[in-house]
Amino acid sequence: MRQASSTLSFDTLGRGLTEITSDVSDWVEQAGMTDGLLTLLCRHTSASLLIQENAARAVRADLLAWFEHIAPEGDHYRHDDEGPDDMPAHLRATLTGVNLQIPVANGRMRLGTWQGIYLAEHRRRPHRREVAVHMIGQ
Amino acid sequence: MRQASSTLSFDTLGRGLTEITSDVSDWVEQAGMTDGLLTLLCRHTSASLLIQENAARAVRADLLAWFEHIAPEGDHYRHDDEGPDDMPAHLRATLTGVNLQIPVANGRMRLGTWQGIYLAEHRRRPHRREVAVHMIGQ
Amino acid sequence: MRQASSTLSFDTLGRGLTEITSDVSDWVEQAGMTDGLLTLLCRHTSASLLIQENAARAVRADLLAWFEHIAPEGDHYRHDDEGPDDMPAHLRATLTGVNLQIPVANGRMRLGTWQGIYLAEHRRRPHRREVAVHMIGQ
Repeated sequence: MRQASSTLSFDTLGRGLTEITSDVSDWVEQAGMTDGLLTLLCRHTSASLLIQENAARAVRADLLAWFEHIAPEGDHYRHDDEGPDDMPAHLRATLTGVNLQIPVANGRMRLGTWQGIYLAEHRRRPHRREVAVHMIGQ
Repeated sequence: MRQASSTLSFDTLGRGLTEITSDVSDWVEQAGMTDGLLTLLCRHTSASLLIQENAARAVRADLLAWFEHIAPEGDHYRHDDEGPDDMPAHLRATLTGVNLQIPVANGRMRLGTWQGIYLAEHRRRPHRREVAVHMIGQ
Repeated sequence: MRQASSTLSFDTLGRGLTEITSDVSDWVEQAGMTDGLLTLLCRHTSASLLIQENAARAVRADLLAWFEHIAPEGDHYRHDDEGPDDMPAHLRATLTGVNLQIPVANGRMRLGTWQGIYLAEHRRRPHRREVAVHMIGQ
């Protein structure tokens, strides 16, 4: 049994979902283990990670619209020094969470057929985001 | 240190919460490890996993009503080719997440007294759902 | 490769967020492993765990206000035998989740600069809360 640990960096284009499934899959391959447990941690408080539909683009559009509905921008937040999109970004990151765990078997992540891994950028502007990756196995 | 990996399948009855605590517990026992880390991954985008109250049935009824309030059905979604219950199902799965991790000690999951593991079906119709299970330990 | 498992207890002061980053960090140090995977599980259904902003206090105030907005107290719940703050507490715990996983490298949790670990108490009154901690690594 052994482990590997690294950081993946992604440049986001502002608010939206970036699919990172193949980047993560490539890292697992590099790590040289075929069976184990993969963990991802988004190292930010206004970006997050989630697993969702990888086929229908409309799902992502609806998901973003729902984030805006459920945690809207507005002048009712106390924390506004970084702009009106900052506090809603913290709320949306809390809603979706910053952690994912995926068992790996026979060299493949055990995701379902329609599942993709997404990095969610909740700020309006582009940011460089880091995702800590860890695998333990053999 | 060693690991075990498998898939548990569940037939849901349509929208609702199915307690799977004893199924998971049985699998841990079969895996033959008494101490370690258990990981669950629901392999779907319209069903999810959560840990909640295992005693009061009313908690589950209120939880389902809240899901319907917070991510309602309606004609305002772009993604509707699979019916009006599909996009809300994706939103509710995002809200609750598809992952759980539970430390195991002395052959028992370290859940609190009132905690049960639930598979949440967010589609109206019955579905067969798969949960990937993984344990590493000894 | 080895593992360590324990329980951390916290006395909350009623509804609010308690930062537990240094308690968790101290436990990792005691566990005597410098590299591995740390898992936390809040053993309750009306308290939860989350990673958020550790600098601006206003973020926590806005987060609590959002919890109250999104899962309000009221007389519309079926489950009310433990008081009007009980069912909203279950909903808020479901929203944020009871699990966290953090890779550890060179003796430090791989959190981002602005990330802190918080125990969220969702009941009005003070409670003693237990967090199961587990680390596997070397």
